[in-house]
Amino acid sequence: MNDLLLRALRGEEVERPPVWMMRQAGRTLPEYRAVRAEAGGFKDLLMNPNRAAEVTIQPIEAYGVDAAILFSDILVVPEAMGLPYNLVEKVGPRFPETIRSLADLNRLHEVDPGRDLKYVIDAIEVTLKELQGRVPLIGFAGAPWTLFCYMVEGKGSKDWTLARRMLWEEPALSDALLTAITKATKAYLHAQIEAGVHVVQLFDSWAGSLSRELYVQRILPHMQDLVEGLRGRVPLTVFAKGGSHFLKDLATLPCTALGLDWQTNRQWARRLADEAPGGPKLLQGNLDPSTLYANPGIIRAETHRMIDELGIQRTIANLGHGLYPDIPADHGRAFVQAVKEYTPATERETTTSV
Amino acid sequence: MNDLLLRALRGEEVERPPVWMMRQAGRTLPEYRAVRAEAGGFKDLLMNPNRAAEVTIQPIEAYGVDAAILFSDILVVPEAMGLPYNLVEKVGPRFPETIRSLADLNRLHEVDPGRDLKYVIDAIEVTLKELQGRVPLIGFAGAPWTLFCYMVEGKGSKDWTLARRMLWEEPALSDALLTAITKATKAYLHAQIEAGVHVVQLFDSWAGSLSRELYVQRILPHMQDLVEGLRGRVPLTVFAKGGSHFLKDLATLPCTALGLDWQTNRQWARRLADEAPGGPKLLQGNLDPSTLYANPGIIRAETHRMIDELGIQRTIANLGHGLYPDIPADHGRAFVQAVKEYTPATERETTTSV
Repeated sequence: MNDLLLRALRGEEVERPPVWMMRQAGRTLPEYRAVRAEAGGFKDLLMNPNRAAEVTIQPIEAYGVDAAILFSDILVVPEAMGLPYNLVEKVGPRFPETIRSLADLNRLHEVDPGRDLKYVIDAIEVTLKELQGRVPLIGFAGAPWTLFCYMVEGKGSKDWTLARRMLWEEPALSDALLTAITKATKAYLHAQIEAGVHVVQLFDSWAGSLSRELYVQRILPHMQDLVEGLRGRVPLTVFAKGGSHFLKDLATLPCTALGLDWQTNRQWARRLADEAPGGPKLLQGNLDPSTLYANPGIIRAETHRMIDELGIQRTIANLGHGLYPDIPADHGRAFVQAVKEYTPATERETTTSV
Repeated sequence: MNDLLLRALRGEEVERPPVWMMRQAGRTLPEYRAVRAEAGGFKDLLMNPNRAAEVTIQPIEAYGVDAAILFSDILVVPEAMGLPYNLVEKVGPRFPETIRSLADLNRLHEVDPGRDLKYVIDAIEVTLKELQGRVPLIGFAGAPWTLFCYMVEGKGSKDWTLARRMLWEEPALSDALLTAITKATKAYLHAQIEAGVHVVQLFDSWAGSLSRELYVQRILPHMQDLVEGLRGRVPLTVFAKGGSHFLKDLATLPCTALGLDWQTNRQWARRLADEAPGGPKLLQGNLDPSTLYANPGIIRAETHRMIDELGIQRTIANLGHGLYPDIPADHGRAFVQAVKEYTPATERETTTSV
């Protein structure tokens, strides 16, 4: 197996940073669009273990990445808790029912992943079989605050004011909902690990909507509960998009790596991760995904600058958020290739040399 | 006149921070909803000088704020340049045409504010007459990057990928569009100042979508041009939402104050503003607007903590973004009142004292 990612996550010295891309399986690849067209909708695709495995594996060949990440969706957990949703093309997720009261909360049920999320577990098993050990498989889940946002609002939002309003107006209800989500997510990730994923990642996509105080006081205890409950199993990465204002607080979690968005200063994050209370953490990120609209020469230079700033060791090269659907596949390949060909700045030929 | 805001902006020592709220004129106030219902749509309202003046003035009585801000919209500038838009209820702005090519750009025209934005100038004149000098009037415009986003995409976006793609793919076209926007905005703000506004603010609502490097290299020169071109007239505040990762760069602009969102660390921003290259700057902000969903006791405590952290001097008390439409007017009043009643932490009775 190409175990570069796992060696890096174990803290071993590596020859170069491992590389993968958030949303690497998806619309940028023609071979994905072909499978998706056969499957029907996005949800049909992720609920079909064979097809989900197929698109999970595609990026290994297509981009040459060092890891596969399960093709799935963070909203499968709310659905498993009893809150079904639809994915409306070009519009986004829509939950016909939402959580606004204790009565709503009481209609949710505990999640048995083997029953309620069997299609994901099956997809992991098919994927691992078809991967034939080529690269590690990353599992994932949405973080409690991000799932809370969707379960309260029922759809995407710019400011998540209904969810934030509930935090202030109904602290007990909010906390109970976050507790229920955390419990379901813990069970779900344990089941993914049982099924064989090698690494897990928590996506807190809407972390940036909260002040540091509110995140630390109301959300971080649930993150702590969740990450602590998974400690000692497989390496775990926490990616809180827009959350660099409380990265120092996230660094207190017993996780292995912190994901960085492209707004986060790299050298600052490196110092912070090196000095994390439980020992140094890896950093994962953080090229501005829009850089991949540029030509391959610029992609290469910006990727090399990223590694200059993050360092080779304890770094997982990635984007600062998911690949945008209209990024040419060639440009994704240029990013991955640039990581593989990285040499330190002092050893590089510069454009001004003769 | 209550000239507290102007004294603070001149750098004079003040008895307490002046206070106003972004989006203080609007849906939170029943008296606004009445005027809006009479006017028709949002655009009918802002294009009617008498009605625009009326809703501009409402918050002075309703909230007791120390300044009025003109009721208008940042998108009037693209429209004046030749790109009309509609405001669709519960959906947002929609531009039937967008700028994607040099041919599109060439169809825009130079802005003569006295002709193309006469309704805004008229609204300022009516407002000043009806204000009768009670409080200063703040004028404003969208910053070049934020207007660029709308003119390229034609509507709101989560990631502004079309606009960011253009920055990478068509640097010359992007720069030409930013230059045209900057020129129009400069003329527009000069006209607002001629008409009598006492302070101006630039809103860079989508600053947070860019990496520091991209903002500094591609956007900041236009900000510099714009702010430099207005220097020496009235105090100017730059508010770059989500832009705390380049606040240090914004502090190099020859502006009077920097607006802060609620994700920005206050003590850090204070040090940075105190050490700004051109001399100390004021800070404006930055209570998390969702705090106003809480009860007045919490609003009061959080507002006092904000002033503890920002300091009394060189601070303009405000929210970290606009008032949300569903915030009770009473809670807006509690915020303003808390600023007016502020006493330093050392002099406050704490809840643990007997």
